[in-house]
Amino acid sequence: MMGTHPRKVFLVTLSFAFFAAGQTASEKLIPRTSLDGKFLDLDFPAVHIGTAEYEEGPTGATVFYFPNRVTAAVDVRGGGPATVFTDILRLGSEKPIVSAISFAGGSAYGLAAAGGVAAEIRDTKTGTPEWNNIAVVPGAIIYDLAPRRFNKVTPDEALGRAALRAARPGRFLLGAHGAGRFAVQGSYFGTPTYSGQGGAFHQAGLAKVAVFTVVNARGAIVDRSGKVLRCGNDPSAAPCGFIADRLRSVIDRQIASAAPKSDELTRNTTITLVVINCKLTFAELQRLAVQVHTSMARAIQPFHTDADGDTLFAVSTNEVNDPRMSAVNLGVLASEVAWDAVLSSLPVLDPVDKGTLPDDASFFAACAGRYAFAEGVTLTVIHEQDRIWAEADGNSPLYGFRLKQKEELVLNTSGDLIVKSQPANRLRFIKNSSGHVTGLILNPGHWPVSANRLP
Amino acid sequence: MMGTHPRKVFLVTLSFAFFAAGQTASEKLIPRTSLDGKFLDLDFPAVHIGTAEYEEGPTGATVFYFPNRVTAAVDVRGGGPATVFTDILRLGSEKPIVSAISFAGGSAYGLAAAGGVAAEIRDTKTGTPEWNNIAVVPGAIIYDLAPRRFNKVTPDEALGRAALRAARPGRFLLGAHGAGRFAVQGSYFGTPTYSGQGGAFHQAGLAKVAVFTVVNARGAIVDRSGKVLRCGNDPSAAPCGFIADRLRSVIDRQIASAAPKSDELTRNTTITLVVINCKLTFAELQRLAVQVHTSMARAIQPFHTDADGDTLFAVSTNEVNDPRMSAVNLGVLASEVAWDAVLSSLPVLDPVDKGTLPDDASFFAACAGRYAFAEGVTLTVIHEQDRIWAEADGNSPLYGFRLKQKEELVLNTSGDLIVKSQPANRLRFIKNSSGHVTGLILNPGHWPVSANRLP
Amino acid sequence: MMGTHPRKVFLVTLSFAFFAAGQTASEKLIPRTSLDGKFLDLDFPAVHIGTAEYEEGPTGATVFYFPNRVTAAVDVRGGGPATVFTDILRLGSEKPIVSAISFAGGSAYGLAAAGGVAAEIRDTKTGTPEWNNIAVVPGAIIYDLAPRRFNKVTPDEALGRAALRAARPGRFLLGAHGAGRFAVQGSYFGTPTYSGQGGAFHQAGLAKVAVFTVVNARGAIVDRSGKVLRCGNDPSAAPCGFIADRLRSVIDRQIASAAPKSDELTRNTTITLVVINCKLTFAELQRLAVQVHTSMARAIQPFHTDADGDTLFAVSTNEVNDPRMSAVNLGVLASEVAWDAVLSSLPVLDPVDKGTLPDDASFFAACAGRYAFAEGVTLTVIHEQDRIWAEADGNSPLYGFRLKQKEELVLNTSGDLIVKSQPANRLRFIKNSSGHVTGLILNPGHWPVSANRLP
Amino acid sequence: MMGTHPRKVFLVTLSFAFFAAGQTASEKLIPRTSLDGKFLDLDFPAVHIGTAEYEEGPTGATVFYFPNRVTAAVDVRGGGPATVFTDILRLGSEKPIVSAISFAGGSAYGLAAAGGVAAEIRDTKTGTPEWNNIAVVPGAIIYDLAPRRFNKVTPDEALGRAALRAARPGRFLLGAHGAGRFAVQGSYFGTPTYSGQGGAFHQAGLAKVAVFTVVNARGAIVDRSGKVLRCGNDPSAAPCGFIADRLRSVIDRQIASAAPKSDELTRNTTITLVVINCKLTFAELQRLAVQVHTSMARAIQPFHTDADGDTLFAVSTNEVNDPRMSAVNLGVLASEVAWDAVLSSLPVLDPVDKGTLPDDASFFAACAGRYAFAEGVTLTVIHEQDRIWAEADGNSPLYGFRLKQKEELVLNTSGDLIVKSQPANRLRFIKNSSGHVTGLILNPGHWPVSANRLP
Repeated sequence: MMGTHPRKVFLVTLSFAFFAAGQTASEKLIPRTSLDGKFLDLDFPAVHIGTAEYEEGPTGATVFYFPNRVTAAVDVRGGGPATVFTDILRLGSEKPIVSAISFAGGSAYGLAAAGGVAAEIRDTKTGTPEWNNIAVVPGAIIYDLAPRRFNKVTPDEALGRAALRAARPGRFLLGAHGAGRFAVQGSYFGTPTYSGQGGAFHQAGLAKVAVFTVVNARGAIVDRSGKVLRCGNDPSAAPCGFIADRLRSVIDRQIASAAPKSDELTRNTTITLVVINCKLTFAELQRLAVQVHTSMARAIQPFHTDADGDTLFAVSTNEVNDPRMSAVNLGVLASEVAWDAVLSSLPVLDPVDKGTLPDDASFFAACAGRYAFAEGVTLTVIHEQDRIWAEADGNSPLYGFRLKQKEELVLNTSGDLIVKSQPANRLRFIKNSSGHVTGLILNPGHWPVSANRLP
Repeated sequence: MMGTHPRKVFLVTLSFAFFAAGQTASEKLIPRTSLDGKFLDLDFPAVHIGTAEYEEGPTGATVFYFPNRVTAAVDVRGGGPATVFTDILRLGSEKPIVSAISFAGGSAYGLAAAGGVAAEIRDTKTGTPEWNNIAVVPGAIIYDLAPRRFNKVTPDEALGRAALRAARPGRFLLGAHGAGRFAVQGSYFGTPTYSGQGGAFHQAGLAKVAVFTVVNARGAIVDRSGKVLRCGNDPSAAPCGFIADRLRSVIDRQIASAAPKSDELTRNTTITLVVINCKLTFAELQRLAVQVHTSMARAIQPFHTDADGDTLFAVSTNEVNDPRMSAVNLGVLASEVAWDAVLSSLPVLDPVDKGTLPDDASFFAACAGRYAFAEGVTLTVIHEQDRIWAEADGNSPLYGFRLKQKEELVLNTSGDLIVKSQPANRLRFIKNSSGHVTGLILNPGHWPVSANRLP
Repeated sequence: MMGTHPRKVFLVTLSFAFFAAGQTASEKLIPRTSLDGKFLDLDFPAVHIGTAEYEEGPTGATVFYFPNRVTAAVDVRGGGPATVFTDILRLGSEKPIVSAISFAGGSAYGLAAAGGVAAEIRDTKTGTPEWNNIAVVPGAIIYDLAPRRFNKVTPDEALGRAALRAARPGRFLLGAHGAGRFAVQGSYFGTPTYSGQGGAFHQAGLAKVAVFTVVNARGAIVDRSGKVLRCGNDPSAAPCGFIADRLRSVIDRQIASAAPKSDELTRNTTITLVVINCKLTFAELQRLAVQVHTSMARAIQPFHTDADGDTLFAVSTNEVNDPRMSAVNLGVLASEVAWDAVLSSLPVLDPVDKGTLPDDASFFAACAGRYAFAEGVTLTVIHEQDRIWAEADGNSPLYGFRLKQKEELVLNTSGDLIVKSQPANRLRFIKNSSGHVTGLILNPGHWPVSANRLP
Repeated sequence: MMGTHPRKVFLVTLSFAFFAAGQTASEKLIPRTSLDGKFLDLDFPAVHIGTAEYEEGPTGATVFYFPNRVTAAVDVRGGGPATVFTDILRLGSEKPIVSAISFAGGSAYGLAAAGGVAAEIRDTKTGTPEWNNIAVVPGAIIYDLAPRRFNKVTPDEALGRAALRAARPGRFLLGAHGAGRFAVQGSYFGTPTYSGQGGAFHQAGLAKVAVFTVVNARGAIVDRSGKVLRCGNDPSAAPCGFIADRLRSVIDRQIASAAPKSDELTRNTTITLVVINCKLTFAELQRLAVQVHTSMARAIQPFHTDADGDTLFAVSTNEVNDPRMSAVNLGVLASEVAWDAVLSSLPVLDPVDKGTLPDDASFFAACAGRYAFAEGVTLTVIHEQDRIWAEADGNSPLYGFRLKQKEELVLNTSGDLIVKSQPANRLRFIKNSSGHVTGLILNPGHWPVSANRLP
């Protein structure tokens, strides 16, 4: 059957501007803010949400803008936090000073987005910059760089400005978007799995609680029955079972082994924002931040590891006062909403088909070669005896490819080569106009990573 | 049948020195350190554990002594912490400076136990007090005072000294003992339920992890399947169901109500110690403290509320180095051990029988009257038409009695009067030699609270 | 005599691109990095220093780049800190992770410079962005906005990039440059006085200590004999006397008054970097940061007020180990160097001449009118009876002009009008080609602030 | 002249119960609370001050009791803090929860005094211990143990109780009393010099500010002209000169030397309490704590070293509101009062006379021998050729005696032997009834340290 459409093999349609592997960010990057997907609708006009992405990363930023400034608290608990403007939030002031919160990908570099958000507020929302209208924009980032992707595209001032300009009330984009554009979860268990940004909203009496979280966790996402929700990128894979069993087995394997040196396939960080509309003192808001952040250890296991930079902001718009809801009750409510938010972060996965060997395998020869994602980051494709293998043989693993481990490839119905043992990992080869293979895309679809063929 | 032993009704045998309600602590308090119960056995010679109690509280202290000093980190997350010697643990020193950790009941007053521990180490374990052998004894306490009990007996220097003298390796007393002598859990859900101190131990490779915790939580204890373990003091009561449902229903009831003013039946605090034997840097030990403390939000829900003073110490004896166990793995392992420790804190409850009206109810008349637990804390027992009621009619609720709420009493087979709607709450009346009722004990058994009859 | 060169009065030569009052930052801003002035020479090749400025602010950034990454600690003590990437420095890690420290003007907006520094390091100094070579660039800013200046020009990503590109070892520009381009000190005493950035260096044995500080303090700079160094911008003014007397007189005046509402002429913040070359543990480096920051309370009085965001970073290049210098001695040494650094921050002032009434005062008429620095920020110049006055009559004071307080102006030899009572404050009027006065510059020279004439 | 009263030589009058060297604290210690000396009078009825001492240490405690509870903040900045109940002060609560502040000597052991203070408040000032009347008593201690003194007498529960019972408004005992009973300052410069506790009070408008400080600093006390106030215990010694010179010379000597291993003659810590009567928010009170603590770096140089555990509490009685005094002004005022308080801590010294060789030196022979202050802490007195020397030849230096350094002794007019090179250090020998020398007192007078003669 496969033999009937061999031409399809190299048919490449790129739905985004192709960005050469390892290329430096240029000024031509265009923030994308008209994004489709699944949205959370929320009735919370005091918070405006904007999302902007660079497909060339892919990476992005998510901005929460408060036309009326809010009071804020922060709880930093991870072992590798990257934050901006948090120190002032620890001084106990009761004054609403925060204009926006900025979340971004890009690791340390993504903090630049917060600067863009602040500058855009200054230029479009406020008058003369005087003490009382300075835009205070705390922020945090997630790690989404090598070995996940290898270019230097990270959120910057322009992306932050774009996200702020796009900010509107009422809708939050779920899944692998914005700051969560290239997030993963579950790498503690050996299988980093795409995640994204989640959100949830609940109103109880007059109290409104919204939680937004970018789940880029070393731990796995767990539901209220103790089950791991997703442990791989194959949508048709079997259920993952109980987290308690998985936690135990990691330790058991570790002890059974002789101190394996692990391929760390990812760094992590979960960043979260809780927005409430109830009047709270600073001390109450800080307590709520601590209570909710801690509660998320139910939904993400393990949480706050040394390889996470977990940070949570809690802000209040101070709009209402519902005496039925104590600060502790608000904390409990927000904790449940936070769990829902984490659950909602799982993105729609690219479809997977299992693949077979083609009847006519001759085109394999054209693909064989060495492909570079970045300096020293290579995938070698080997053609032997009508079969084909790929191996990350540089100095870095690749998303889905452990270092120095050969994987057999087979052909799927889309004409991509897929890893036989993990069919969610695919390779699409790119031909130039003269028909020569010049590169490949690892995992074409929503999380593409490109490489150039080496001579 | 009941009628056959009416004499039994006033038969009171006190297994402890009776301590008058509201009495000030005198020098005659004798620390009890030979305590029976269920023990955790652990193979961890580097940690010596001592437990001492004042039955007159009842209250107690639990001390962890390290003959070779340990490195330590602390994570304070609750809204009402009461701690001693924590500031020095935040400075990042790699030197082992901690000689012991002191846990106690008695709220703020119980911090005195840490002073006793330090003094006893000075007097019996070290030479001339010079900089290098000062006994650094960090500590924390739990709240176990009114309206749980009403006297002024709290852990003091003498109790701390006694606990240190009693410290031995290898065994840890589980349940309502030591610092957890009068702990409760679950009051967030309206029913404070006796808890205590729990412990668990695990060895993986060379790594040993022990966790000790005094669970005096506003939240409820939850098992790995999401179920609440105990929600009342009646050992024969029905299972408690899922925590998720209970959390939701609190909020729902709160919103449905018109801002009820609650009888706060308890203040709280969970205090925890993690002991590991692996060499860790200060930064790693601190990360482990944060990771494990956060993980306990799975076992106690809600956790770290404003009404909790939750504090966790992590110490390392720095005895071994097992390269198979990374610091993060140790954190994961310790988190699971911590969950086991929480589960083990639930004490054996006093037996309950449901009670009936006696065939000859005449003795009810002798009990009617007003009883004072402390100034302004009264229970009035009313005899009307052959039936009997009790009501906390002072300015404080009592354990098991909401303020100004009349409860019918019936007679159980032990000759105690029990609350018909909650048979775990019992009243035993005390007669003097001339046969007059002079007082009562609320909940005779392991958690007795005494009152004098008012003229 | 003045009458002989009336034409000179409106002769305006602007040595920089004129930036209209209130104008939004455009992309045409050109960072200036070739800057003249007084330099500190230092023999410390491990630290590269770059300075970049936007004259249109004026404002600037100062960047310290470490080709070999350094260990770092931070001490935040002021009441209004604005910082980036500080949280990770509190976790006690012994790993050198910091690539650069970014200081900038522009208040909150200036944090964007740190993002530019990081991006430039990524693009020019490192390969594929992977965990081990991410550029961690902590930073802090000073307030230099209204009512000091009124445009929206603040340090941004481009300025941070330019400063990094300009970074070289061996020299540090002193005075009103870089992040200290529009710094002031001493406003607590009613007279904000231009300050800038200071630096000092000392080698003792193998130990090298450099301190760099941007003194934008609410307090005044004090020398080792207890005297205030400068208390106004007139270089020929009388000495300022002892700080102890000045501190007492502020309180005395305050109490003697009837709760005066003050014109707050400035917000503040002193940001400091200590660089040492000795190997130190994290705990030692943190102690040194605290010790040195505290010691600066001798050189700046008062220090760490609520209106300061004082922040100090201490970094170590870990190049040498001189056993003669204990960590405490290093702290003492660095504290003395820090004092020297503060003293060196005072900039060269613009020359002042006292001015007189001109023989022919007719040109006063041409100047009369209302001038806007920004929306609502106006200075009205009034011509009456051959004399001339100016008054800040909008809703903001101006640098040197208290709100709603009329000041007489006279003519100096440069053809500027000067405030008779404070001749360091000058106005230069600007004519267009047809001879009409179209605007003015407040304090032409090193700290110019421009206004447009209102119709 | 000396020859005329040789009998006086062994005349020993001990004004206190003699406490054998190295003896363990017994229950017979009697707190002394009727103490004479120089007092600060202050008009601040809301703060009650109690002082209690154990002459057998000597050591002591100073307690500040607030009949109406106060709001409180804490600033911990030293490298070796020993504190109790500080964590709750960091949570930003606006509620007045603090009943007292406890300062004590005894290093870590002295924290027990805080427990005694709390227990005494519970027993004598409050009713049933319920959440709303728990006595919260934060505290801190200073180091005053070996090699300053060698016994195990430290402040305990009983001493804390005694100090609380003695607490009265209006007077504060200055100098070497209470917690400052055996404080020293200036050891950084090689000469630890007796200091004590200081206090100062100022009223400005309605605002009252009192500062109490126990100066046990590694640094030296400096006046407002930059001069060191006291650099030895000889009251007739020459002035000490400028601190700037002394700081420089320490570093210069250190570098000139070949890494001398120093006898650390003392550990340190300065603990301070600021009490104000003005209403302040938590954030304002915290800022004030930071501002005042930092300002003390002027009065104590160096300050906050790694060998100091410097801690400052700021509390407000919230009695008045004087709009003329901003929070910053209050901070400035309190900083000046703090400086005055430090200056007032210097105690009256024991009189010194220079001594000579006696005409009849025969009694020297009787003194020769070895004296033990504690296990391993010995002073050997050697008689050779009609002259006499003493040397600390154990494993610890002594106050005034460097390790293994022989000092010649001469006889003063009181019959004590004094160190010729430092006449403030004296030895008084003790005879039993049969005329045998059985021990000695180092520095009889206000700071006596006793030793037993070894067989």
